[in-house]
Amino acid sequence: MAKTAITPTRDQDYPGWYQQVVRSADLAENSPVRGCMVIKPWGYGIWENMQAVLDRMFKDTGHENAYFPLFIPKSFLEKEAEHVEGFAKECAVVTHHRLEPGPDGGLVPAGKLEEPLIVRPTSETIIGHMFAKWIESYRDLPLKINQWANVVRWEMRVRLFLRTAEFLWQEGHTAHATKEEALEETRLMLDVYADFAENYMAMPVIKGEKTVGERFPGADTTYSIEAMMQDRKALQAGTSHFLGQNFSKAQEIKFQDKEGNESFAWTTSWGVSTRLIGALIMTHSDDDGLVLPPKLAPKQVVICPVIRKDEERDQVMEYCKSLEAELKAAQYDGQQVRVTIDARDVRGGEKKWHHVKRGVPIRIEAGPRDIESDSVFVGRRDQPKSSGMGRSEFVAKVGEILGEIQDGLFQRALAYREENTRTFKSLDKFKKYFTPKNADKPEVHGGFAKCYFVDCAEVDEMLKPLKVTPRCIPLDQEEAEEGRCIFTGKPTKTVGVFGKSY
Amino acid sequence: MAKTAITPTRDQDYPGWYQQVVRSADLAENSPVRGCMVIKPWGYGIWENMQAVLDRMFKDTGHENAYFPLFIPKSFLEKEAEHVEGFAKECAVVTHHRLEPGPDGGLVPAGKLEEPLIVRPTSETIIGHMFAKWIESYRDLPLKINQWANVVRWEMRVRLFLRTAEFLWQEGHTAHATKEEALEETRLMLDVYADFAENYMAMPVIKGEKTVGERFPGADTTYSIEAMMQDRKALQAGTSHFLGQNFSKAQEIKFQDKEGNESFAWTTSWGVSTRLIGALIMTHSDDDGLVLPPKLAPKQVVICPVIRKDEERDQVMEYCKSLEAELKAAQYDGQQVRVTIDARDVRGGEKKWHHVKRGVPIRIEAGPRDIESDSVFVGRRDQPKSSGMGRSEFVAKVGEILGEIQDGLFQRALAYREENTRTFKSLDKFKKYFTPKNADKPEVHGGFAKCYFVDCAEVDEMLKPLKVTPRCIPLDQEEAEEGRCIFTGKPTKTVGVFGKSY
Repeated sequence: MAKTAITPTRDQDYPGWYQQVVRSADLAENSPVRGCMVIKPWGYGIWENMQAVLDRMFKDTGHENAYFPLFIPKSFLEKEAEHVEGFAKECAVVTHHRLEPGPDGGLVPAGKLEEPLIVRPTSETIIGHMFAKWIESYRDLPLKINQWANVVRWEMRVRLFLRTAEFLWQEGHTAHATKEEALEETRLMLDVYADFAENYMAMPVIKGEKTVGERFPGADTTYSIEAMMQDRKALQAGTSHFLGQNFSKAQEIKFQDKEGNESFAWTTSWGVSTRLIGALIMTHSDDDGLVLPPKLAPKQVVICPVIRKDEERDQVMEYCKSLEAELKAAQYDGQQVRVTIDARDVRGGEKKWHHVKRGVPIRIEAGPRDIESDSVFVGRRDQPKSSGMGRSEFVAKVGEILGEIQDGLFQRALAYREENTRTFKSLDKFKKYFTPKNADKPEVHGGFAKCYFVDCAEVDEMLKPLKVTPRCIPLDQEEAEEGRCIFTGKPTKTVGVFGKSY
Repeated sequence: MAKTAITPTRDQDYPGWYQQVVRSADLAENSPVRGCMVIKPWGYGIWENMQAVLDRMFKDTGHENAYFPLFIPKSFLEKEAEHVEGFAKECAVVTHHRLEPGPDGGLVPAGKLEEPLIVRPTSETIIGHMFAKWIESYRDLPLKINQWANVVRWEMRVRLFLRTAEFLWQEGHTAHATKEEALEETRLMLDVYADFAENYMAMPVIKGEKTVGERFPGADTTYSIEAMMQDRKALQAGTSHFLGQNFSKAQEIKFQDKEGNESFAWTTSWGVSTRLIGALIMTHSDDDGLVLPPKLAPKQVVICPVIRKDEERDQVMEYCKSLEAELKAAQYDGQQVRVTIDARDVRGGEKKWHHVKRGVPIRIEAGPRDIESDSVFVGRRDQPKSSGMGRSEFVAKVGEILGEIQDGLFQRALAYREENTRTFKSLDKFKKYFTPKNADKPEVHGGFAKCYFVDCAEVDEMLKPLKVTPRCIPLDQEEAEEGRCIFTGKPTKTVGVFGKSY
């Protein structure tokens, strides 16, 4: 068996592999504050690239950024009954506003607040409160706001990026004069997320509507994009909620229409978070570590000078620096190629694996022999073997190669999902599909299942023992004819996608 | 007296004027959460532009972004004695991690934490803890990290942007092998802040060292940039701290040097916040509202179509749209000119004042008569009168005009500061300078005072009744000879700048 840079491998222990990929790529680590992670520069660099692309997409679709308070008064959360139900069990509560010396010499909380404040788990209630002040007439609509922020949902069992008490995200909040317009916005932002997932993260997603049991607390309809990870489990990568008039009624978001009548606005909210980094890792990485799609890689090309004797240093460094300058003048995805030189004084093998594990798309080695032949040694993260290439040819083709890597990652992930998706007409086979063949490896199961079903509590109950959930009702309902729900036997036109999930 | 768009004027009531400028420009407002503000899109747009420039400057000087937890365990804060002393009296304390139904039907805090968590007022202690884990050898140094984040320092008396419980900022944290290198970093970042203030905010600043009494809690030396507002008060616009080995000793940030000896690292921290927006407002704005330096304006040019009859609409809109496209192809400050069309259906006067109050540097009006003569009507925010100009001439010169506005604002602010700065050799005159002439207007006083002084507690005590503080000891000590401290009469070589401050 080939030695791999990551132990354990995906096959040996998928969750263990994930942890090691995050650690070896220096993306993030646990902090001394229970549930909160530290995002290290390489991981944060990915988030910055994600932010830049999404922010442009939000602005191109007419949204503006703003910032709302970190704290939400308890009474605000209580206004929408389902909403508070959804978040009360996992929120950080601020009860005091100073520390003072206590009886044992240490400091104790003092200055008790009249009303406790909740560290925002999401901002519908505080933003809705402001919307109610800002919106008076139909002329003030639509109101389309986005916020980049940190949020807190208390968590004891942490998995870096996937489940943490504090995470970074964006939350869009919009208000509209009509139901149709709000629904259109909800679907538009789902499309934006799918575009981002597929064309930037190179991660194929299924766009669909969530079942009643999986809706956002307080929403009329929740849409999501669902992706398959390499353990065949589903990861919900982004959600877009049609909130109907639930929040506008709870918070008095009213407007005068053209005829002078007062109506409640129709609102939406939508968000993606640093969880996307977890999705990115689990979609592409392999047993040698992180694999990054070039469009989101903090560095797309790393140049490693090969210097065996001190007297070679100047010549090699000069060659590498001029190559770096040429590459910076090249373009990929409408931007300057992101290139860096790693001139650290460490052994060549160590340096190579450092960048392999961090997922840099292209590694270049250049030493005296390459200078002689005016060439470079090119290692692609998506291919096992490195190979020599003329220097000017490489510079001319760097954008094309990055594009090839980007597309290749998407195609590979799409093929994997398709191989691991099956359509079912029998409940027995469905059950067997999701039953681990080996009790020692409960995580090994089928993948995604498609079948006719009726969205009801009865089906949700039947799924529980299998630890399977309806991931979504795809918007793209391939089969128009009527079938039978494989759980209840009732006639239905609805096809759902089912899976185990993160 | 000319009618002004802002009531009260600066002369009538400066704090009231400030509030009205913020409100009329739609920058921010108070939230229902005591002490926390809502930053509205126009205000947030300024912050985004500030972030973009500063972020590039930080990266160009070798810093990387990362993200650390929002919460700090109480015990961490207690590790550095002066530090906790500085922040304990004004911090938000999280004591519980869920809400559950209470005896009265409402929800009450539940799930008490073993150790209270503090919402970060600043992150030296949590970042220092991580640094201690990351740094082992001199090879790991320097470590140069920046974080963009929200912080909370409890405040009861709020002034939008200037003093709020929650604010947005960046905090740089670095660790170095030698004292010299850490000092160099501290000064380098002070220079970065001064460069940003002067060349982007068009706000002249004095770079200097803080006196002992004004240091950051836990620092060996604090440097700041100090700016004069239009009420002649000082605003500390950014600080850079040399922390010596105080935090590294409290947190065990140790490294092995080249000789294999273990040493404590030397650390720095430095930050600027959304307070800069307050400084920007008070440096340039006038009695008609906000005035923005072009480099930071969310929009640099607004085009207002002048349409008097419906049949003119198509032609005028076409003219405006093609003008917009031409302006977008033009450059200012190395970027595409930020231009927008305001096609809202509101009266011309109302529209004009809307943009005047929001501080848009250039307003263009274009109607049928302008189309006939292929011209535009140009209003500059820094000049009282609008004037006609050939269209192609305007397009060719737009970058130059924006540059003129940017420079003009800086020069005007510099002249104002110089007019309102005096050097003193007598304590009586110093006192008179800072004593309001009119008891009804306690805010009207001299300005900045320069004088010889000795940095000691005795002088601090003498200044208290005057409500004056030493702002800084300028790095640029103009007078090299020795003088006498005007407070104590002692010989000294130190010249300080004194003022009333925000």
